[in-house]
Amino acid sequence: MKKRIVVQKYGGSSVKDADRIKAVAERICSYKNKNTDVAVVVSAMADTTDDLIELAAKITKDPTDREMDLLLACGEQISASLLAMAVREHGCESVALTGFQAGFLTNKEHGKARVEGIDGKRIKKAFKEGKVVIVAGFQGVTAEGEITTLGRGGSDLSAVALAKAVKADVCEIYTDVTGIFTTDPRKVPEARKLSAITFDEMLEMASLGAQVMQARSIEVAKRYNIPLHVRSSYAKEEGTMIVKSVKHLEEVAVTGVTSNKNEAKITICAVPDQPGVSAQIFNAIAKAGVSVDVIVQNVSHTKKTDVSFTVPKSDIVKALKATEEVAKKLGATDVLHSKDIARVSIVGSGMRSHQGIAAKMFEVLAGAKINIDMIATSEISISCIITLDKVDTAVQTLHKAFSLEKGK
Amino acid sequence: MKKRIVVQKYGGSSVKDADRIKAVAERICSYKNKNTDVAVVVSAMADTTDDLIELAAKITKDPTDREMDLLLACGEQISASLLAMAVREHGCESVALTGFQAGFLTNKEHGKARVEGIDGKRIKKAFKEGKVVIVAGFQGVTAEGEITTLGRGGSDLSAVALAKAVKADVCEIYTDVTGIFTTDPRKVPEARKLSAITFDEMLEMASLGAQVMQARSIEVAKRYNIPLHVRSSYAKEEGTMIVKSVKHLEEVAVTGVTSNKNEAKITICAVPDQPGVSAQIFNAIAKAGVSVDVIVQNVSHTKKTDVSFTVPKSDIVKALKATEEVAKKLGATDVLHSKDIARVSIVGSGMRSHQGIAAKMFEVLAGAKINIDMIATSEISISCIITLDKVDTAVQTLHKAFSLEKGK
Repeated sequence: MKKRIVVQKYGGSSVKDADRIKAVAERICSYKNKNTDVAVVVSAMADTTDDLIELAAKITKDPTDREMDLLLACGEQISASLLAMAVREHGCESVALTGFQAGFLTNKEHGKARVEGIDGKRIKKAFKEGKVVIVAGFQGVTAEGEITTLGRGGSDLSAVALAKAVKADVCEIYTDVTGIFTTDPRKVPEARKLSAITFDEMLEMASLGAQVMQARSIEVAKRYNIPLHVRSSYAKEEGTMIVKSVKHLEEVAVTGVTSNKNEAKITICAVPDQPGVSAQIFNAIAKAGVSVDVIVQNVSHTKKTDVSFTVPKSDIVKALKATEEVAKKLGATDVLHSKDIARVSIVGSGMRSHQGIAAKMFEVLAGAKINIDMIATSEISISCIITLDKVDTAVQTLHKAFSLEKGK
Repeated sequence: MKKRIVVQKYGGSSVKDADRIKAVAERICSYKNKNTDVAVVVSAMADTTDDLIELAAKITKDPTDREMDLLLACGEQISASLLAMAVREHGCESVALTGFQAGFLTNKEHGKARVEGIDGKRIKKAFKEGKVVIVAGFQGVTAEGEITTLGRGGSDLSAVALAKAVKADVCEIYTDVTGIFTTDPRKVPEARKLSAITFDEMLEMASLGAQVMQARSIEVAKRYNIPLHVRSSYAKEEGTMIVKSVKHLEEVAVTGVTSNKNEAKITICAVPDQPGVSAQIFNAIAKAGVSVDVIVQNVSHTKKTDVSFTVPKSDIVKALKATEEVAKKLGATDVLHSKDIARVSIVGSGMRSHQGIAAKMFEVLAGAKINIDMIATSEISISCIITLDKVDTAVQTLHKAFSLEKGK
């Protein structure tokens, strides 16, 4: 009989101290039996990564990416070692592996390396010996033996890549929330935990501000169709399954409402409405290292048009500098900007087959006297840029209007 | 022209915080120039190792040596990464290497691994690129890719092994004292810093309680004749050279006085005075995992004799249990023990050719009304076990009697 293989990933808050590490070890051992192998990916304990970054900042403002990776990789090496001890203390044989010991081969891009493959030999050997495998997340090694890290949230990616390598039946992502909600439950008490959500919906939710899982890891899970189970390490209850498709009893259009307050808006006024102008603007922004999110350019009836776009608030200074330079070249009349904006979005795979969802959204916002500044749509989401002070009201009103508290 | 190669080792107190790391980086850069290559071995920052041990202790009383090594190796990986950043910030190109990246191959004895060889390829490549090499001390890797540590004080060993591998001209050991003293300067203000000392003398000093350098690393330096320079990372002044032989202007017998308060004494009374009895006793103690230091057995005029020996205070419970068991088997009348003892020793290569040193030592102690309980001698040292409360007086009196404050 083929053994069941479970991959679990525990985030930093799940292993923040010795007691939490012991609790996690207990859970791990409850999964491990003669018919089930368990491989665990673990993040650094709570504040470890930030503490190490702070230490480095005291020494240099410009650390090399290579040494930064060598430094930060310790966070997960520490938590993996401790968790392996705790699992053994709880009665299961275990082995802790660093990224390189676990065979996580990456490219050379320090700080945001891509996993190029996993040599699962070592892990499979440990499975054969009946051991629970604890892997330090977030890290890998290049063919030259350099230690790399996968970027913030990289442990999610480690877990998904590992799940693929060992052909896991499920990849459980443990965090400090009980699952994916229709919207942020801290702001909307009626928010409902979803029992299932599609990869596409989750990708929209993740990129639109629901910070439960790293987007890249969801993409990889989608590509290889690895079912994810997002759940809490503090509770026994089931969380949210992230899968290829969800069969709803009654098909609904909207799965969730998200918001993002970390964007700022820039508008270039009266640029020539001719081919190549947009390219010129957004090349300049890209060169400044700023990623642009929503872009709106209206049809013009004159020879001039306004172009608006949003960027992360933290990049506004860089973005404005680049924009003003390019505006001068283009002969634009003005560059305006505002930080007092936010985005509210509705997400749902059902939008593909439902008409009138956008109209309903705009109507609901109008009914709440909320003015819409910019609109952007994807196949399964609609986003509106509104003023910052209205965003919480917008989320609540939309959540209610689409009856998200009632379930599918 | 052959380039000069300097290996430096910085202990935990030398890199205890960001400011100290910067100060060390400045010193390193002052050595590096186009005619000199510098390789640095660094210990974990001050309390890091103890903090990690404490964390593990909260999780299990019985951690596996393998996971303990994986955990502790992070301490040096962190300090090496930070120091490499600081060196670069100070203007010298640098590269930080973990034990395995630096090619420190060890056997499989986790927690006290032996260095079996160093593959210096990576380090030599970095030298060619004009880089200062910063190596995480205390650690290595087995042929199977397991991370090992070399035991307490193992960074000294890393430094000496590295000095051998790169054929260094000198191996500088940076610590928080300015060198090796004739005795502990905190207790005897007249203590004098030695400008040079032989490997043999240093070995006696180290094993007899002067905790400046790990004994094993001195042995290795002696075997390969690698000159060591023990000095302070807080001062510019020269420290103490540890070399094969020291030419003194005027030959003196005694180089230093040391004491050790961490021993306890056990006596087995009235054991049969016949072959094999000592072997039986000390086999039993060895099996209990306790290392015995001084052993005294008097010539007996009856068929019975007393056997006394010292063990580390921390092992007294284990040692007593083993001793009492073996005493019963041997029909000994009693087992006595005392923790209120200490050892005072005089050390000096000159003893080989000087007569009357032992007699003078006993006379001096008698003059200070200090009773001698046990005596042990080596080729270049004489040790007396005395009562604990007299040991500081003994050290001071001997230091003065042998005129150690006056220099060679």
